[in-house]
Amino acid sequence: MNVACRNHSFRFEARLKPISKNQLKRVRNLGRKKGRRESGLFLVEGVRLCEAMIESEWPAEMLLVTPAARSDSRVEELLSTAASTCKVLECADSDMQAVTDVVRSQGLLGIARWEELEPDVFFGGTWKLVLALEAVRDPGNVGTILRAADWFGAEALLLGEGCAELQNPKVVRSSAGSLFHVPCLQNAALSEALTRLRESGHRICGAALEGTPVKPGWHGAHDVLVLGNETQGLTERVRAYVDEVVRIPGRGRAESLNVAMAAVALLALARG
Amino acid sequence: MNVACRNHSFRFEARLKPISKNQLKRVRNLGRKKGRRESGLFLVEGVRLCEAMIESEWPAEMLLVTPAARSDSRVEELLSTAASTCKVLECADSDMQAVTDVVRSQGLLGIARWEELEPDVFFGGTWKLVLALEAVRDPGNVGTILRAADWFGAEALLLGEGCAELQNPKVVRSSAGSLFHVPCLQNAALSEALTRLRESGHRICGAALEGTPVKPGWHGAHDVLVLGNETQGLTERVRAYVDEVVRIPGRGRAESLNVAMAAVALLALARG
Repeated sequence: MNVACRNHSFRFEARLKPISKNQLKRVRNLGRKKGRRESGLFLVEGVRLCEAMIESEWPAEMLLVTPAARSDSRVEELLSTAASTCKVLECADSDMQAVTDVVRSQGLLGIARWEELEPDVFFGGTWKLVLALEAVRDPGNVGTILRAADWFGAEALLLGEGCAELQNPKVVRSSAGSLFHVPCLQNAALSEALTRLRESGHRICGAALEGTPVKPGWHGAHDVLVLGNETQGLTERVRAYVDEVVRIPGRGRAESLNVAMAAVALLALARG
Repeated sequence: MNVACRNHSFRFEARLKPISKNQLKRVRNLGRKKGRRESGLFLVEGVRLCEAMIESEWPAEMLLVTPAARSDSRVEELLSTAASTCKVLECADSDMQAVTDVVRSQGLLGIARWEELEPDVFFGGTWKLVLALEAVRDPGNVGTILRAADWFGAEALLLGEGCAELQNPKVVRSSAGSLFHVPCLQNAALSEALTRLRESGHRICGAALEGTPVKPGWHGAHDVLVLGNETQGLTERVRAYVDEVVRIPGRGRAESLNVAMAAVALLALARG
């Protein structure tokens, strides 16, 4: 690092304001669903996720950082980049730990404005591959599925009623930044949504243990892959909208895979 | 249910003894690694896992059940089956919650004797597909990988030093019973183990982001698939023993998949 860099870093450091008690209270409220709903904001925890947020087109409202975290050059660089587009405030370690959802905070927390996807935008497109979830309640599963959708190039995610809320910090965290990449429609009435998707040329595939084992490259021109709830799988109500029931070929003695593993396997096999 | 069944159930119910304070203390010790190591026993939580334990050839030592759990016919059936081969004792709800690792116990807890696989048995075989893990520390990941190995028919699991302990209740739980199906060798020195596996005709494949994207059916006659630690991936030290570096084809913007997702995807694609 040269002297100019050091100076730049020093200048940036000099202008951070401490967060006020009131602001801190509002940040803490974002740990609860009610607080997120009322404010339209959500938490983005840690360095990697804040980087993904800043690199994406999501409207970042604030970055909150502890003095200790700023010794990390990656954090300083992120703050420099972000400072022109969002507020950057400082807080004490103890305050950070009080507002964060993680056991050990990295000392960097982002606050972003939630942008709900317009249903008309979602249904207006013809997607190659959409993942749809029926009442997948575990936030870790929803986040993991988002990450897999992003990796394997599924273009959109449809969440039926009863799924974990996308703004839940555990969803955001387990998505590892993919929340900022994949267009998602949540709280959808699946029966209506699947009908619309079928009308716009999508084949509806539902994953269930008694389905036909998929072959690599199973994915056709325009597919929706529907995965069911963690314990019940797909309900009969949703199955009525499914064109084809598929399963993951298995050879061993495991009874089942969990819904996130099923998503990964089916996506890995999708295009062969 | 007919009257004969009811009678049978009643007779079985009649002969359950309560667990003693001393026994309960020994069960509680199994929540800690030290307690497991000293006793050679481990915990098996919940109905499904206890069923898998009883169906397998693992030596079950004890089933502990609460009076409330016995109203479940599946539990009663399991107890009937198990009573001839292992001790069945009763305890109060509060005692059960004190010894269990889960937030809300199902009221059924098994205690099994750990049987470490003999290295000579492991290295004596020529396996079609072995999964090997380098310092995968998260018990949930190790358990999920076990479940995936079982589902996709990987024949054995090799755990290098620094991996989560297989007897950890979180590993047992997230394996969803697959711990009782898949032969595992743990605490292995990976360099030595991979050398021996290569000498016995296995190709060693390591998973890393810069590898060659696999195609469906990538798995040859006798393969070992090595996956690295959650944050560091494969170390250079282990890579020295790898014949071929492979990766999961991805099309989106996700930086990576976690190690359990990577295992699922590579196993799903293994045989095409």
